Amino acid sequence: MMSAVKTRSNEINMEIYEFGDGVFKKHHITTSEQIKPFLEVNHKFWLNLYGLDNESLLKEISEIFEIHPLTLEDIKNTSQRPKFEEFEENIFVVCKMIYSKNKSREPITEQVSILFGKNYIISIQENPFDIFDPIRTRLENPTGKMRKMGTDYFAYTLLDAIVDKYFDCLELAVEKIEDMEDSIISQSKKTKLPEIFLQRKTIQQIKRTVWPTRELLSAWKKSENPLVKKKTIPFINDVYEHVIEIIENLEIQRESISALVELFMSNLSLKQNEVMKTLTIIATIFIPLTFIAGVYGMNFEFMPELGWKYGYLLIWIFFLGSTLAMVYYFKRKKWF
Amino acid sequence: MMSAVKTRSNEINMEIYEFGDGVFKKHHITTSEQIKPFLEVNHKFWLNLYGLDNESLLKEISEIFEIHPLTLEDIKNTSQRPKFEEFEENIFVVCKMIYSKNKSREPITEQVSILFGKNYIISIQENPFDIFDPIRTRLENPTGKMRKMGTDYFAYTLLDAIVDKYFDCLELAVEKIEDMEDSIISQSKKTKLPEIFLQRKTIQQIKRTVWPTRELLSAWKKSENPLVKKKTIPFINDVYEHVIEIIENLEIQRESISALVELFMSNLSLKQNEVMKTLTIIATIFIPLTFIAGVYGMNFEFMPELGWKYGYLLIWIFFLGSTLAMVYYFKRKKWF
Amino acid sequence: MMSAVKTRSNEINMEIYEFGDGVFKKHHITTSEQIKPFLEVNHKFWLNLYGLDNESLLKEISEIFEIHPLTLEDIKNTSQRPKFEEFEENIFVVCKMIYSKNKSREPITEQVSILFGKNYIISIQENPFDIFDPIRTRLENPTGKMRKMGTDYFAYTLLDAIVDKYFDCLELAVEKIEDMEDSIISQSKKTKLPEIFLQRKTIQQIKRTVWPTRELLSAWKKSENPLVKKKTIPFINDVYEHVIEIIENLEIQRESISALVELFMSNLSLKQNEVMKTLTIIATIFIPLTFIAGVYGMNFEFMPELGWKYGYLLIWIFFLGSTLAMVYYFKRKKWF
Amino acid sequence: MMSAVKTRSNEINMEIYEFGDGVFKKHHITTSEQIKPFLEVNHKFWLNLYGLDNESLLKEISEIFEIHPLTLEDIKNTSQRPKFEEFEENIFVVCKMIYSKNKSREPITEQVSILFGKNYIISIQENPFDIFDPIRTRLENPTGKMRKMGTDYFAYTLLDAIVDKYFDCLELAVEKIEDMEDSIISQSKKTKLPEIFLQRKTIQQIKRTVWPTRELLSAWKKSENPLVKKKTIPFINDVYEHVIEIIENLEIQRESISALVELFMSNLSLKQNEVMKTLTIIATIFIPLTFIAGVYGMNFEFMPELGWKYGYLLIWIFFLGSTLAMVYYFKRKKWF
Amino acid sequence: MMSAVKTRSNEINMEIYEFGDGVFKKHHITTSEQIKPFLEVNHKFWLNLYGLDNESLLKEISEIFEIHPLTLEDIKNTSQRPKFEEFEENIFVVCKMIYSKNKSREPITEQVSILFGKNYIISIQENPFDIFDPIRTRLENPTGKMRKMGTDYFAYTLLDAIVDKYFDCLELAVEKIEDMEDSIISQSKKTKLPEIFLQRKTIQQIKRTVWPTRELLSAWKKSENPLVKKKTIPFINDVYEHVIEIIENLEIQRESISALVELFMSNLSLKQNEVMKTLTIIATIFIPLTFIAGVYGMNFEFMPELGWKYGYLLIWIFFLGSTLAMVYYFKRKKWF
Repeated sequence: MMSAVKTRSNEINMEIYEFGDGVFKKHHITTSEQIKPFLEVNHKFWLNLYGLDNESLLKEISEIFEIHPLTLEDIKNTSQRPKFEEFEENIFVVCKMIYSKNKSREPITEQVSILFGKNYIISIQENPFDIFDPIRTRLENPTGKMRKMGTDYFAYTLLDAIVDKYFDCLELAVEKIEDMEDSIISQSKKTKLPEIFLQRKTIQQIKRTVWPTRELLSAWKKSENPLVKKKTIPFINDVYEHVIEIIENLEIQRESISALVELFMSNLSLKQNEVMKTLTIIATIFIPLTFIAGVYGMNFEFMPELGWKYGYLLIWIFFLGSTLAMVYYFKRKKWF
Repeated sequence: MMSAVKTRSNEINMEIYEFGDGVFKKHHITTSEQIKPFLEVNHKFWLNLYGLDNESLLKEISEIFEIHPLTLEDIKNTSQRPKFEEFEENIFVVCKMIYSKNKSREPITEQVSILFGKNYIISIQENPFDIFDPIRTRLENPTGKMRKMGTDYFAYTLLDAIVDKYFDCLELAVEKIEDMEDSIISQSKKTKLPEIFLQRKTIQQIKRTVWPTRELLSAWKKSENPLVKKKTIPFINDVYEHVIEIIENLEIQRESISALVELFMSNLSLKQNEVMKTLTIIATIFIPLTFIAGVYGMNFEFMPELGWKYGYLLIWIFFLGSTLAMVYYFKRKKWF
Repeated sequence: MMSAVKTRSNEINMEIYEFGDGVFKKHHITTSEQIKPFLEVNHKFWLNLYGLDNESLLKEISEIFEIHPLTLEDIKNTSQRPKFEEFEENIFVVCKMIYSKNKSREPITEQVSILFGKNYIISIQENPFDIFDPIRTRLENPTGKMRKMGTDYFAYTLLDAIVDKYFDCLELAVEKIEDMEDSIISQSKKTKLPEIFLQRKTIQQIKRTVWPTRELLSAWKKSENPLVKKKTIPFINDVYEHVIEIIENLEIQRESISALVELFMSNLSLKQNEVMKTLTIIATIFIPLTFIAGVYGMNFEFMPELGWKYGYLLIWIFFLGSTLAMVYYFKRKKWF
Repeated sequence: MMSAVKTRSNEINMEIYEFGDGVFKKHHITTSEQIKPFLEVNHKFWLNLYGLDNESLLKEISEIFEIHPLTLEDIKNTSQRPKFEEFEENIFVVCKMIYSKNKSREPITEQVSILFGKNYIISIQENPFDIFDPIRTRLENPTGKMRKMGTDYFAYTLLDAIVDKYFDCLELAVEKIEDMEDSIISQSKKTKLPEIFLQRKTIQQIKRTVWPTRELLSAWKKSENPLVKKKTIPFINDVYEHVIEIIENLEIQRESISALVELFMSNLSLKQNEVMKTLTIIATIFIPLTFIAGVYGMNFEFMPELGWKYGYLLIWIFFLGSTLAMVYYFKRKKWF
Repeated sequence: MMSAVKTRSNEINMEIYEFGDGVFKKHHITTSEQIKPFLEVNHKFWLNLYGLDNESLLKEISEIFEIHPLTLEDIKNTSQRPKFEEFEENIFVVCKMIYSKNKSREPITEQVSILFGKNYIISIQENPFDIFDPIRTRLENPTGKMRKMGTDYFAYTLLDAIVDKYFDCLELAVEKIEDMEDSIISQSKKTKLPEIFLQRKTIQQIKRTVWPTRELLSAWKKSENPLVKKKTIPFINDVYEHVIEIIENLEIQRESISALVELFMSNLSLKQNEVMKTLTIIATIFIPLTFIAGVYGMNFEFMPELGWKYGYLLIWIFFLGSTLAMVYYFKRKKWF
């Protein structure tokens, strides 16, 4: 149904899903004019848009649905902060989708704008991305809740699908962090600092997206707008709890990463200490001995020891004795 | 009464305890059909379930007790965040049990769901675990409070038993932390960093469980549901205070662990310093002497000192004098 | 229209922009007397001032517009904290402009005071700076919002222009920080600590300016003053959201810088470790060998090995064997 | 009046002080029966108890004064968190006494439970400890406030005496911390890390006691119980302010200790740096010289320099020149 | 007018300034009896006291002005926390003056108590200190606000003078911190750690004084006491804003100091790294060479190389070649 190709689309793609009791039709449309007839029909419909570059089309749509100019700005500005805004005729929700294309890189954030009125839901994505596929499947089910409940429930399912992606992203990060933790503790393979810092950035990025989503949901829960039905509140509450869970988890991961850096640095210190001990033991044993050897290598004419019969033997006894004494000393100091 | 075997049960285990003034009967049941008669009886009853894998049975039970589909989801999803939820007919509490199988590992967390209505309490555990044994014993006592008070008091005793386990877990961690502290200060045996980090994770895990439990109890305290009787509030308050105490304690332990890591690292630095001093003292004394010995080991034809009668004696006097001067210098610098 | 020269002006510069439906005139004035006629006219006007040194003129103006003595103090005191103050006849806003003259230095902060009444807006800058140029352009557009909306909308556009500058400043800092991050991770070129600390100061300075601006806007949003029209609130809300976004971003940058310093320091530790290993390997291999060579350089009369036929060969075999053993030992310890 | 012996008493010790206008009598009693007559008398009385081991006596007393079972639990459980609890007939306060037996050890915490009703005050201590001696003295004064004011004022004086002890404990810690600070800055004597960590623990322990005391007093201040008279509120407020002062002080001490550890560690780094410099200077000067001496100690048959008349002189000139050059280089680098 | 001598005065010094419309008289008084007549007069008066040691006089004054015993305690206890307390007849303010006698030491804190009723202001200082001189000057101005406004405005001017001193203290600290920052970055002169720690203490001390002053002012602003006139509120608000500014500044300085310590420590690490590199380069080049020289210094009878004609030349070629190779290796590793 949807191409898996995720190239930045230069034109707006539009799909309309008409649905209601016993009704479900999908329409591919290309102009804003084609939307108008649906507004008069008795069924609800979902307009799904990809791409933000066709400004004139966006403007026409915003006129059809009476969207405030600032809201249109918010839709087009992809760095908009997630928020929940109520208008007389409809409710506007901006949120962020996060997904990881590549495990070794930071996740990518994309904006999704959702607008729902009495009998329509509009969702606007930056690029075609298959995040709403399961929703299409659920819509096809003639006895499912999707068809019976209001547009606010529909908007909830979209948001729920997005928040579920946060869990995927978080899990990926947690997995990576735990891998690094194991590898640092067991010292089995080399974990490098930049990897840890990358995960820190990932956690930070998810947090940055999830925090305002919490506020958004909190506002939704408390909304007294007639478009938000009482029956939907428990579901909104459910997503809200998921978001709280993600936030708590992120905090824990943040602490884990700090602990990881600390562990990494202290492992480094431990290794440094070991290196220094090796050097010191070797130097402390052999530097004095080398000196003694140097002494008997001197060419003074009068050096009585050199003539002794057992001089050489005695000096070896001294060498070995001194080495043993040193080894014993370091052993007692628990240097090795 | 309960097997000590704690294997993951693949089927749901059900026990019903019927109780009231002068009444106490235990029933082993296997189908949801067997529950229905109890609903009609005048006594209160406690339904204790183990295992979450028999989906159809859970669904049947949820229909008998009119449990909301989202609540059923919460029961089955073992990563559910602790919470307190009020419905028209009953109150739903999710909480977490923590226990340590093994001192050298992180504690294990298991979910316990509690649902209580006017004359029934349902508790659902992941695995058979003997945490509620003392409650069974108290139920057997015909004059005990358990029989006289309402189902909310019963739910309180279940929660109280769970929170008591938190104390056990915490105490184990505190003990370990104090052991490590002593061993680091006295430097008696080697405490390794990964051990400290394991305790940090344990503390973090308990905290993660206890924080939402606090919110849960706070909601319970403030609840105006007729199922929550005024007489039970002081008891809920009591558990609440225990949880606050645990939270304060966890914070203290978290600080202790940070201080411990700091102490560990600074001990390492102190040792490193000592190692470096040893090396420097030896090197500073003997490297110049070795040089001098090397000088008189040179083979120049014209080296007047070599012919002196007391040359060798003088050079030894120089060696010893220089060593003594160095030792004095380091002593004055308080290097040893 | 405006000179790009930004020297500290020693005299006050005044411009009046008269505007309204179909009306737009610009007047250069030099005395406070010239302002009075505009107060009687039916149009709105914008009085733009540069320079704070002509005390008597400021005093005269403050008398014309009935400005409270403490407010006049706030205008003149360029270290005033941003704030929103309501009076009976007008509203007073102090805010801060930030701009970077030079990438390698901290940004410069300048105070802008805005006062607006029913039909006038006064803006007072420390120095002529072209921040309000786009506003002049928008004013020239006869059908633009600027002309139709009230003075509070005008004040909003001024503040919006100022907040936009914060984004520029922030972006510059973010760019620098990301550059440093890349260069530290790839170790391509030398990033020095003072550079990192400069960026930290920049972030701190923006934060210091933006925080009270948030409070200012929050007060404005909640204001029930008749001068603040309901239609302007969404616009104020929009700037407020921008400020929140900047604050969140600053927090993230602050954390990034901390991570950067940590990364820098740990890179240093890693390098130190490498240096120490090099030294230790060389010393551990050659110091014992030098000792052995020293031994056979001794001049004892009776040293049997010296007379052996293969003595010299054997000693070389020993030298090489010992070196290889050491290399193997360090390889196994993963020292290189 | 009170034995200074502070051994853990195995039996409960009871004293009753009967007081009122012109009345003051002290009674030693041994059974709970002896308390009852006082309840009927017109005077107020203070029942002071030591020891928590005689369970049956505590139970009898709790029955006489109608103490809630959970409150009795709180009295017996010496790890109870400080709190303020109001009942219909009386008010119950749990607080903690801190005292230092030994300067070089953590302070000891003991629980004091206070219960006051219309005409009685009960104080229960773990061990006989002379903390309430000044109160006895004040009671003996026939014109003092103690006799005239209500039981809540009496309870206040008890709490005030306890909070005063916190100041003593804090002062002792502050003194120790300042001593360590001076000794670290002046480097006069060796302060060891474990000492710093002990003070950190002491600060933490006081904090742990004082925080809930603040909550306790805050609840007392806001209490609308008729037992809490309006005239006593300024006094409660006074203790409350003392507690706030202690808390602020503790925070400052906590920061001081962190700074102290930082100072300690950086001093260590400075010393390490000095040690390394010494080593490096010596090694850098003498290792190359030793090499040169070694070269002319080689036994090659054809080494022209060895035959030169001034060879030995020249080599010494080289040695000295090279040493001077090195010293100059290090001086310029400000290594010493 | 005031002696600059600031010795601890052992006796209380009293001055009364009588003022009102067209009235201004200064009186030196020595007994509390002399105060009473002023209470009956129609003018307002300011009683300025120095010294807290004459207890009986303080007591007499407290009786004249009906001061609560706890308030008298607060006046005498110079470690009282700043606070704002309202009574029926008067308002009591305790605040702290900070001044630096000596740039290289922590600032000194002194308590100032202010009490004002309908027509009197009392200020009590620990020592004669010329902080209120500008207020005396302003009082002498017959048309100034001081004479017209109420006693609460007078109290405000006293507090304002005190808060202004905080700015002086802060500026001094900021200057010192920026000096240290410059000297650390440019490494021009030696900044020592204890200096940084002293500034940290100064910042902490100002913070400790300013925080409760903020609470004090907040309480004053919200006070509904008839003694606090509406016209004075903007002035109180002004001081309040100053205090907020100081607090924000202190926070920034605190962070600057932390950054400074970090910078200091990382500079130390950088230097340590350089020292280690020097050592390692020298040792890595010369230790192997010394070994080779040692080899050819051995006295084996059969060492063919020694007899080679170009042996000595070859060995020098090897020495130089090996050194060059090493230098090239270190260059490539960017060690120097």
